[in-house]
Parts: sequence; C-alpha cells; structure tokens
Amino acid sequence: MRYELYYWPSIQGRGEFVRLALEEAGADYVDVARLPQRGIVALMRFLEGKSDGRPPFAPPFLKAGKLMIAQTANILLWLAPRHGLVPKSEAARVWAHQLQLTVADWLVETHDAHHPIGGAFYYEDQKPESKRRAAHFTAERLPKFFGYVERVLGRERGGWLLGQTFSYVDISLFQMIAGLRYAFPRAMERLEPKYPRSVALHGRVASRPRIAAYLASKRRIAFNQHGIFRHYPELDT
Amino acid sequence: MRYELYYWPSIQGRGEFVRLALEEAGADYVDVARLPQRGIVALMRFLEGKSDGRPPFAPPFLKAGKLMIAQTANILLWLAPRHGLVPKSEAARVWAHQLQLTVADWLVETHDAHHPIGGAFYYEDQKPESKRRAAHFTAERLPKFFGYVERVLGRERGGWLLGQTFSYVDISLFQMIAGLRYAFPRAMERLEPKYPRSVALHGRVASRPRIAAYLASKRRIAFNQHGIFRHYPELDT
Repeated sequence: MRYELYYWPSIQGRGEFVRLALEEAGADYVDVARLPQRGIVALMRFLEGKSDGRPPFAPPFLKAGKLMIAQTANILLWLAPRHGLVPKSEAARVWAHQLQLTVADWLVETHDAHHPIGGAFYYEDQKPESKRRAAHFTAERLPKFFGYVERVLGRERGGWLLGQTFSYVDISLFQMIAGLRYAFPRAMERLEPKYPRSVALHGRVASRPRIAAYLASKRRIAFNQHGIFRHYPELDT
Repeated sequence: MRYELYYWPSIQGRGEFVRLALEEAGADYVDVARLPQRGIVALMRFLEGKSDGRPPFAPPFLKAGKLMIAQTANILLWLAPRHGLVPKSEAARVWAHQLQLTVADWLVETHDAHHPIGGAFYYEDQKPESKRRAAHFTAERLPKFFGYVERVLGRERGGWLLGQTFSYVDISLFQMIAGLRYAFPRAMERLEPKYPRSVALHGRVASRPRIAAYLASKRRIAFNQHGIFRHYPELDT
C-alpha cells in the first residue's frame, strides 16, 4: 500500500516523527504537500473540511487505504505493528504508546518555550515571556524529561527504550535530541554528559542504514526557524 | 478485575477523564491516592521509581492486573473496548483515539491559559502573561476547538462524536465543557449559542444514569483552584 502523508512542506515539525518511521520501515509513501503537482492545496482541503471523510484537526495526517489517521502518536500506533517497529505483545505496545505520548508532551513544551502566549503571535511579540519560559524549560523541564528516559533506558539491557527491542519510540527520542541540539546547543552541551544512555541511543538510531540514508537525502528538511525546534540564542543561556 | 487508579486526590485534573469512564462502565476500581490507608504515598512510590514495573512519567496511571498504564488517552484506549465504550471496528477505535488526543491538546491549552510560563510558578507570578494568553485562548482557540467538534457532531445523525454510537470520547467532551463552564463562565455564555450540538451532548452525557449518580456523589471532587480548570475572573473577559 502506498501511504499518503499530509504535513507542512517546509518544516520537520510533528510530521518528521512520521516521516522517520516510514523511512526506517522502508515504506512506500508520498509526502503530498511537497509534491509540485498537488502541494499544500491538497492538505488544506482536508483541514477546511472539504473532504467527505473524518476531518483531522491539524496535520500530520496519513491516508492509508480508506483510513485517514491524524494525531502523530495515533499514526505511529497504527503504523508500527504493520512494519515491525514495535513488538507484538499488547503490553509492549501499550508501553511504547505511553512513552510516545510522553515524548509528545515534551514536544509541546519545547514548542511553547518560544511561543508561550500562543502560536498566533510572532516570536518577536512574546520575547520577554519566552525568555522566562525557556529558562524554566532548560533548567527544570529538560532535566526532568531526560532523567525519566535515562531511567527507562537503565531498566533493562539492550540500550533501547523497550530494552532489547528497537522500536519507533527510539526514533522519536532520536528526533527529540536532534531537535534540542539545534534549538538549545548550549543547554544540551551542559546536559548531555549526565544522560549518556540517551546520547548513545541518538547515535545508534542515526547510524541505522535507512535513517542515515534519509538524513543525508534531500527528503530531510533542515531544521529552521519556522518549525517546532527553533534556535534563538537568547533563549539558550 | 479490580482496577487501581492513581491520581492526585484533591483535584479532578486529567484523572477525571479516567474516573468518568470507569464510572460510566460500572467498573470495579479503587482511587488509590484517596484511600485513607494508602493515599498519596502509594502514588509517589511509582513516580519516584521505587517500583519494579515500567515507570510512569506522571499521573494518572491505572493498574490493571499486571499492566500499569499511564497517559490519560492511552488508559482510555485500553479501557474502552473492554467496557463497551467504543465500537469494535479498528476504524472507529482509531478515530475515537484521534478525537481523544485532540481533546488532550485542548486540555493542555486550557491549563496553560493560567500557567503560560510553567507549572512550577504560582499563577500570581505569571499574571500578566496569563492575561495575554487567556485572551487569545478565549477569543481564538476556544472557537477553533468548538468549531471542530461541532463540525464532527454535524457529520452524522445520532448526536455523538462517533455518530449513532456513544463512546468514551463523548464523556471527555462533556468534561471539557463542564470544566470550561467553571473556568470561563462569561466566555462560555457568549460561545455556547454557536455550538448547540456540543451543548446538547454535554447535557445528554450528564443525564446518563451512572454519570448522573457519580456527579451527585462524594466521589466527584468539586472543581477548585488547584486543578486544570481554574476560575480567575480577570482571565475571563
């Protein structure tokens, strides 16, 4: 089956967690909004409710045959067992999804570090508020999230969040670390020595053949100042 | 099976979405942190990683036999098919979970209206920021979320989010509306006439026998100024 992924064409954003999973799976997919002949218009059609199906609230969404699935963690929950990206047992799937939802919470907080008042305002219009929030984010929240995943990684041998078995949640943690390094290089330089298991996991995911090929390709959009991870030096002290 | 729910004992918060589903299901459960003989200590044990199992990042979490499940939407995803709170088809479950995750996003934004800088600071220490964020929340975000659920409710006859079939997502939308009425009574008075299907759904859920009995019982904690939904008149203009 050829999947259709719908996401903003010029940023990594939430869609990147799905792109990475599709790439690791070697799945057949098209990134619809990046196609010259279809593009963003096709995406907007669904958001504006002009389609017959069940309407998504926001991108990303994935068309898989007759199904249209939205919400990043929901898409991954559906994709992973079909592509060997999660163990078969129910307990493992529930645990993986739980971790993915925790990554999703972490991602919201990362975004809100530069947009604490709301996504509708420019960063420049919420700079003092961002400084306060980002200081709290790097000093308190990053150590809390990293401390948690480090503890999870230390529970079992194997080096993956689920222990011996690589899963889609490892890809998501890789992406969090990649994004945080772009957005908060100074904070990350200070923090990383405390979380060696997380850093090692990032490296192991990056060197998986399909992920490495994807990261080196033009399909990987560079981090930029329009995405969720943004680098404002004044927020990274 | 007797479930054990772990959540903060003095607020509705995220735990309330699980409590309501358990009540509607007539499930056998104990609200562990509210038991005099166990209480908050039992909850903290898990958060501090002093248990053997897979550690939750935050409450609520549900012990179901050997499984320990965290993340509200993940708990509901697991519980609902076991208690007839979602149709059996995969398409319906994916759709219900997608809607629940959208409610979860809405809930984060509701919380952040009074805590835009971070949960670690008192409201009093982020009042000007809260005023800006709450104004944006009531003027832009509430209409966006309500417009979306109203559109979903208008897709099919039946009056429930899934159409003809009542599901756990209807309970969650009921709780959102109940909480928003407490937190933003003036904004809601202005908005509600525009979203009659949502308002009708709230009433229908509230009058379901088990939900009505629960709401009238001492098990239902009153909304208060420590939860996610808080009433600050200066944020409700």
